[in-house]
Amino acid sequence: MPNPTACLLVIGNEVLSGRTQDANIKFLATRLGEIGIPLREVRVIPDVPETIIATVNEVRAKFDHVFTTGGIGPTHDDITSECVAAAFGVPWEKHPEAWARLDRHYKPGEFNAPRQRMATMPRGATLIDNAISIAPGFTIGNVHVMAGVPRIMQSMFDSLATRLAGGDPVISRAVHALRVAEGTIADGLTAIQARYPDLDLGSYPYYRDSGNGVAIVAKGTSTADAEAAIAAVTELMTALGYAPIQGDPSA
Amino acid sequence: MPNPTACLLVIGNEVLSGRTQDANIKFLATRLGEIGIPLREVRVIPDVPETIIATVNEVRAKFDHVFTTGGIGPTHDDITSECVAAAFGVPWEKHPEAWARLDRHYKPGEFNAPRQRMATMPRGATLIDNAISIAPGFTIGNVHVMAGVPRIMQSMFDSLATRLAGGDPVISRAVHALRVAEGTIADGLTAIQARYPDLDLGSYPYYRDSGNGVAIVAKGTSTADAEAAIAAVTELMTALGYAPIQGDPSA
Repeated sequence: MPNPTACLLVIGNEVLSGRTQDANIKFLATRLGEIGIPLREVRVIPDVPETIIATVNEVRAKFDHVFTTGGIGPTHDDITSECVAAAFGVPWEKHPEAWARLDRHYKPGEFNAPRQRMATMPRGATLIDNAISIAPGFTIGNVHVMAGVPRIMQSMFDSLATRLAGGDPVISRAVHALRVAEGTIADGLTAIQARYPDLDLGSYPYYRDSGNGVAIVAKGTSTADAEAAIAAVTELMTALGYAPIQGDPSA
Repeated sequence: MPNPTACLLVIGNEVLSGRTQDANIKFLATRLGEIGIPLREVRVIPDVPETIIATVNEVRAKFDHVFTTGGIGPTHDDITSECVAAAFGVPWEKHPEAWARLDRHYKPGEFNAPRQRMATMPRGATLIDNAISIAPGFTIGNVHVMAGVPRIMQSMFDSLATRLAGGDPVISRAVHALRVAEGTIADGLTAIQARYPDLDLGSYPYYRDSGNGVAIVAKGTSTADAEAAIAAVTELMTALGYAPIQGDPSA
């Protein structure tokens, strides 16, 4: 059975303006690969209701799982939750359990209208726990709505991951060598890729103070194939006079 | 006149697998804002021809400019150029000037078939210079095709930017304060945002060893509006008993 697929929506003007370096794509890409729900697409979109609603509806139909980060706080630019409700065509309403958690968390009088928005969710939402700052994320259908702040998002994903049914983990094997030019190994790599069509064989040049080179990374769900492909690449590099080193210098 | 808009396509399995931390989004987002072609969407897509072709055609119709990074090297996983040709429905053929540059660059016999692919482009492409590793990017229509390696991409963008007609630069003003909770300033922020509808007023919590707080960032093309909005936020924070500091702690 093929693995289920994932799409990530990074929602927030701050990434599109260059203000914030995204830190969520790499984390989720890695973790989703490990649980066998490989990430197939990422979209970074602004805090614009029509864009969020249309994008959620497009990608939830195309992928098995959609993960969103950002836009679930208490301020005027936090509009993800109400947009997801609109995308699903369900009411956006008080979630009793989320409401109770936040009401317990805040001092008397502090659970004000902006904070109550964080306990307002699409009807039918299942909570995603937030061990850091209490205000939960939620799942509705195949859409998982999480915070944008990396350590909160990561805590939410830890909680969410336990109830996701993944496929075979995506594993990776790699080899690299200094002074390799991609153009010298390209034909050999094409032949090796052709022998292992289910693997994703990537060629990544690197430029470092310690020297330039190329890393070849094999990713897929078959460890045997990945190891055989990397052995073949190692042989190719050796035959061309390079000194291959096992592993990925970027890992 | 409204500013022209940009979409970025990050093409490459390595970002979707978590192998590589993207470094191109923040660079391009910042530089495009500075030249008045704000980035409105980013998509990270895999090295799959149908996906690249369909996405290029979708976004080139929706945005004034499309920038792509990745997939223009000599190896089997470098398929951006031929996919862009297919998206435009034009032949993918030897580009005489790119060919001449690479032929001069390589030693006799080294300009082999894989490297010749880097001089093969959609008919009608205009070159984007590559001061680092020679192999050029190109522009066809409103699509600008660049390398994925950050320092090569940055060099290409420097060259490309001189021929892009932008709009008013997007500028930014900010203020932040320790111990602020978003929930306490949310209503005040909503009112300030409403007074400056053309500004993008963002609220960004931060969590640091030196203390937690919230930064408010105003972005737009009117410096006067951004300064007035940030002055109003400063007043709001002061009135609530916080000690606002001008500037963005993430900048």
